[in-house]
Amino acid sequence: MDKILLAHGSGGTMMRDLIEEVFVDSFSDVQLEDAATLDIPVGKLALSTDTFVVSPLFFPGGDIGHLAVCGTVNDVATAGAIPLYLSVGFILEEGFPLDDLKKILASMAECAREAGVKIVTGDTKVVDKGAADGIFINTTGVGVVRDGINLSAANCQVGDKILLSGTLGDHGITIVSQREGMGFGTTLETDAAPLNQLVNEVLDVAPATRVFRDPTRGGLASCLNEIADASEVSMLVIEDDVPINQQVKGACEMLGYDVFQVANEGKMVAIVPADQADAALKAMQSAPYGADAAVIGEVVEGAAGRVSLRNAFGATRIMDTLVGEQLPRIC
Amino acid sequence: MDKILLAHGSGGTMMRDLIEEVFVDSFSDVQLEDAATLDIPVGKLALSTDTFVVSPLFFPGGDIGHLAVCGTVNDVATAGAIPLYLSVGFILEEGFPLDDLKKILASMAECAREAGVKIVTGDTKVVDKGAADGIFINTTGVGVVRDGINLSAANCQVGDKILLSGTLGDHGITIVSQREGMGFGTTLETDAAPLNQLVNEVLDVAPATRVFRDPTRGGLASCLNEIADASEVSMLVIEDDVPINQQVKGACEMLGYDVFQVANEGKMVAIVPADQADAALKAMQSAPYGADAAVIGEVVEGAAGRVSLRNAFGATRIMDTLVGEQLPRIC
Repeated sequence: MDKILLAHGSGGTMMRDLIEEVFVDSFSDVQLEDAATLDIPVGKLALSTDTFVVSPLFFPGGDIGHLAVCGTVNDVATAGAIPLYLSVGFILEEGFPLDDLKKILASMAECAREAGVKIVTGDTKVVDKGAADGIFINTTGVGVVRDGINLSAANCQVGDKILLSGTLGDHGITIVSQREGMGFGTTLETDAAPLNQLVNEVLDVAPATRVFRDPTRGGLASCLNEIADASEVSMLVIEDDVPINQQVKGACEMLGYDVFQVANEGKMVAIVPADQADAALKAMQSAPYGADAAVIGEVVEGAAGRVSLRNAFGATRIMDTLVGEQLPRIC
Repeated sequence: MDKILLAHGSGGTMMRDLIEEVFVDSFSDVQLEDAATLDIPVGKLALSTDTFVVSPLFFPGGDIGHLAVCGTVNDVATAGAIPLYLSVGFILEEGFPLDDLKKILASMAECAREAGVKIVTGDTKVVDKGAADGIFINTTGVGVVRDGINLSAANCQVGDKILLSGTLGDHGITIVSQREGMGFGTTLETDAAPLNQLVNEVLDVAPATRVFRDPTRGGLASCLNEIADASEVSMLVIEDDVPINQQVKGACEMLGYDVFQVANEGKMVAIVPADQADAALKAMQSAPYGADAAVIGEVVEGAAGRVSLRNAFGATRIMDTLVGEQLPRIC
């Protein structure tokens, strides 16, 4: 057997074999009852879900499985929670190569280990050829919210600093260049990474942090606009202070993309009161995946929900939210 | 706008509009941060995930949305847990009719209300036309396990009674008859239903219940075989004691299906020690969706993992687990 058959989704012996031989082998913490039962510390729970339909499935620096773990770990982390457990739901297209599935499961398991989360329960459906595109993965994450913090997109105040944990646009441009067969240099990779440790270390030194948000679909622009709307504040971003890889900059210019609207999968935005911003920045820079972290702007007086970008010449333009679709199936 | 566009999955303004105008309108408990934060009583947590790819999307007695809530509520309930919260993840095909989406969301919301669970977080991806078949839905449920119970498929002992909460095969035969355009009578409907209250009421009077399991894909046969394997016991089912609708019986004969392998979405199997079996049966029969509950067999001496079926003439045959695929995309 080297391909997925419809019978692998039947609930019968072939499905049991697939689960026992392939999934359990990859996910050592999985419980084979209909629901996993879990020990959990007392506290508020964080719950987040994300479905991954990225195309292609494999790309420089990662694959859909790695992405599926990072994405949900990061969403749980944005709530100021320690991610503990993941569920995974697969939709497989009849004929999907079993080797590819195994590679994807292995990278999920590896990423879960790195992030310190356990994959404890799952589900697999198989659809007929043509009814899905290879594999889609849902991950849902459960975590426990840290005590003594109060994060919300509505919390920001004038004077707060805007921190970004690294370079913008790497994931989106990596995917589009793979998909379109454009080789923008050989070193460009997805930035997909689990950021729970980074968030945790920022909260250790900057417990008054207002909000975390990972700028995925819609990019930094959507992320900041949503926060500015919720807090009814203006924001000013200094273009030269935003870390961007030269290859990404070049690709965006060539393709007409606005780098501030391109998806990231391993970046975190934090809005931090000015008096804790230095500590937060240092914590980010010394945390995994945060070496290029920078303060990129601040919350300013002005119209509710306005995000502006100031360039090197002092000119200011609006950083608009994406309208319509730029890069489908980026995650 | 009456159809889903790729831009509805972009992370930009169109996606925000879809979420605010369509999803939030349907799911009043949803939190619009990346992760929902939840109050939860102290105790062990139950976590279960299920993805729904049923075709057709609408069928007598239900639709994919209703099914997606029931399926996960029931899986959480099988752990002896009170389901509290659901996440939902949608994959939409470009061009999917918005009216159909709204109908599906409405029936999810209605079913969640009935089951007493809150839909608190979600995610939506849109894929290009042809890359998915209309809509796929993942639901992941969180519940708190009741104190003082110990449920496991490995717990069964000789003498335990096998209870089934109602008629077999209604869901599977309803779907296949819709799909193939075969009208087996006009009254046949899916049995999909939330069974958390039924499980709860059984546990109130039969706290020593060994295991609950809902016989979905693979039907009663897969369900009992898995339990018999895990407990290393034999089981004997009395064919005449198994409630089956006449229409389902007829359809199975005509189509060559084994009704014991047909999927159910609103039925619960409970294995209960003999001294609590009467109480458990009465509780099932007076609970919602349990009117036709019956004791259908018992755990007996014999080879580990063997499930037998005795017919009216006293002849016994093996109740085999499904091999291969019988009814793809049944849930």
